[in-house]
Amino acid sequence: MMSACIIAIGDELLNGFTLDTNTQWLKEELSKSNANVTKSIIIPDDEIFISHELKKTLDEDYDFIIFSGGLGPTHDDITKKTLSNFFRLPLVSDQEYLKNLRKRFKNHIKDSKKTTKVKELNKLDSMIESQSLILDSFNPMENKLGTALGMIGKFNNSQIIVLPGVPKELKQMFKDNIMSDFIPLKSSIPMITLKTTGITESKLYILLENFIFKNKQKLKFSFLPHFTGVNIRISTLDDSSLNDVIIQEVKEKIGTYYYGKNNESLNSIVSSLLIKKKITISIAESCTGGLLSKKLTDFSGSSKYLIGSIVAYSNNVKNEILKVPDDILINKGAVSAETALIMSDNVMKLFNTDMGISITGISGPSGESSEKPLGLYYISIKYGDDHFFKKFIFNINEREVHREVASNTALNLIRLTLDIQE
Amino acid sequence: MMSACIIAIGDELLNGFTLDTNTQWLKEELSKSNANVTKSIIIPDDEIFISHELKKTLDEDYDFIIFSGGLGPTHDDITKKTLSNFFRLPLVSDQEYLKNLRKRFKNHIKDSKKTTKVKELNKLDSMIESQSLILDSFNPMENKLGTALGMIGKFNNSQIIVLPGVPKELKQMFKDNIMSDFIPLKSSIPMITLKTTGITESKLYILLENFIFKNKQKLKFSFLPHFTGVNIRISTLDDSSLNDVIIQEVKEKIGTYYYGKNNESLNSIVSSLLIKKKITISIAESCTGGLLSKKLTDFSGSSKYLIGSIVAYSNNVKNEILKVPDDILINKGAVSAETALIMSDNVMKLFNTDMGISITGISGPSGESSEKPLGLYYISIKYGDDHFFKKFIFNINEREVHREVASNTALNLIRLTLDIQE
Repeated sequence: MMSACIIAIGDELLNGFTLDTNTQWLKEELSKSNANVTKSIIIPDDEIFISHELKKTLDEDYDFIIFSGGLGPTHDDITKKTLSNFFRLPLVSDQEYLKNLRKRFKNHIKDSKKTTKVKELNKLDSMIESQSLILDSFNPMENKLGTALGMIGKFNNSQIIVLPGVPKELKQMFKDNIMSDFIPLKSSIPMITLKTTGITESKLYILLENFIFKNKQKLKFSFLPHFTGVNIRISTLDDSSLNDVIIQEVKEKIGTYYYGKNNESLNSIVSSLLIKKKITISIAESCTGGLLSKKLTDFSGSSKYLIGSIVAYSNNVKNEILKVPDDILINKGAVSAETALIMSDNVMKLFNTDMGISITGISGPSGESSEKPLGLYYISIKYGDDHFFKKFIFNINEREVHREVASNTALNLIRLTLDIQE
Repeated sequence: MMSACIIAIGDELLNGFTLDTNTQWLKEELSKSNANVTKSIIIPDDEIFISHELKKTLDEDYDFIIFSGGLGPTHDDITKKTLSNFFRLPLVSDQEYLKNLRKRFKNHIKDSKKTTKVKELNKLDSMIESQSLILDSFNPMENKLGTALGMIGKFNNSQIIVLPGVPKELKQMFKDNIMSDFIPLKSSIPMITLKTTGITESKLYILLENFIFKNKQKLKFSFLPHFTGVNIRISTLDDSSLNDVIIQEVKEKIGTYYYGKNNESLNSIVSSLLIKKKITISIAESCTGGLLSKKLTDFSGSSKYLIGSIVAYSNNVKNEILKVPDDILINKGAVSAETALIMSDNVMKLFNTDMGISITGISGPSGESSEKPLGLYYISIKYGDDHFFKKFIFNINEREVHREVASNTALNLIRLTLDIQE
């Protein structure tokens, strides 16, 4: 493997107003190649900062050092000038590129002539010329979508790649000039992400610990926890391809906590299951306020299984439309196993579906009581002869996260109900 | 001004699979403070890399060095261990935090006891303990949403801040412990963001062009377009505070396209309006599949106005529950002005609310016909004597964006309906 460092230049990338999307895109591109990004940096449009970082980065001996930003025609675009001073290489104009640039600007300049003074026209031409500059001995990289010429050149053991900051321009130039030509693509991508839900990172780790240890020469395991589950990324350390038998072994160890791989999501998996099994579903949700329905309609084709939902936000709706009896609402409460069970049963009947699912709970920040803590919720499913509820207490004092977790847990219960019946 | 460097740690942030959102968020937060971020770095979970960067960063003499990531309980979480070796400070367990963690895990461990071996339970407990470790002489930072304890401590002239990589946890901990306590906020923020919806960037620019020109010595205008509207950021060029009279003038020029400022969102604005005016609402949505209901219940207090919703995904539900007559559904179609009008009227009656709103449309990628293009939708509102519909065609072939825009447009129509009646 080769190594790469990405250096993004721009004050606006540091002051919180502009997200640097170039670096992330370059990392994604390079993940398909034999070059490993082992550092990325963002620094200001400042000659001292840029020179200082470049010196350190050259000492670290990367195969590729990729700069983005600071190639424009205005006073704060100083990347090329800085590199010229640093490497003691003069900036020269690429004559062919300049000829083309002038051609592209011809009409623009013609229009300007009518209204602009000679002095300003000269300024415009010198700005155009500045866009055609590259370091002497570096190779030019044509910018088809913008004006700033890119470049690539070697210093010690490192290829120095210099790209503009405009994302579209950077992408085109990197794809057309760097990938494959300078950085070979990987023959296969020896990596898989296994997705789990319903189990904590610690417990998952315990399930896999011996296996990880046994395979530590060959495989690298990373655990990526989210609120709704833990992803396990497995990659090979020796660049060999991933062994299906090994992946199968990991999946078996994880058991039903495993629900999908790579780009699959819990709702894409549940949607596919419902379509495959030709099952229709209806939803009665309270605290999640429509989020479960939204998730189950995220993908095209959802009209095959989702017939409809009731967001029963007030007790009146639970009573009048979902027919939860008054005495249950009064004596057991809206957030209770009894209410959840009646909701799943009655929504299924109301919409005449194969499956009914309900959620009722307390998302906070208000609504808790001594018996019913914040984060309490009940989910119930009615499907064929099955009619059950599950109680959860999610100790998190944040409405948005609570609703996200509650609706994902409901999706997971649908998945488990359908999977087990397979 | 003080200076800050942000160091994000994680292989997954370098290999292109996970976007580091923490650094950008920290930059946004710090832009409100007296600390200037002059560098941000991403490096792998690797002791040698981390120590190497830390040494260089300390040499650069920042006031704040902020680490994120690598605090979890698994083998590749090595940030604390690395810092401990680097600073030659032992890791010690924060006993009070550990006590609380054990309490939080008590039920979880109780459940595990039934199925798990003693050896594994001990392992689980040692993982819990690992989450309570901090560097001797550093101060702990409680993690309310997760397990990994954060910390802050001084070395030479730099405050070293260590935060977990899970974004929600990092945000809570940084807000609660660092901002204001360690990093003073700017006394005035000579900047305001005005939020608009329903008007394009070019048209908005034309509305404001003369004004921008007139004030170009004092004010800087930036236009930030999103799918659901355009934000206008106004800042002062001379660091003086923003003049209220000027802001008011801009708002007047924008007119009703303006809906809120800074962190306000369309749904927070609409929720506040409904609460203030004591209006109850019910929703009948089709193509948005619950998203409008979800948005209207994003904030606590939504039970004051949202009584309930019907996600009428199938025509049967539109017919049987919302009483859209068969002949309308057959002759005019489910995506028609007539259907939208009946839906808003009948959902209002069904739930007995002051206002009823409906959305029906084609989110794609399938479902279009020669007369009804993808992206077509109707929104109808019934409120008092008002009963109207609006037709929209949003030319974007992406389901998610279409649903986002449709539900935001509905929120905006509620806002306009209520505002105009003021």
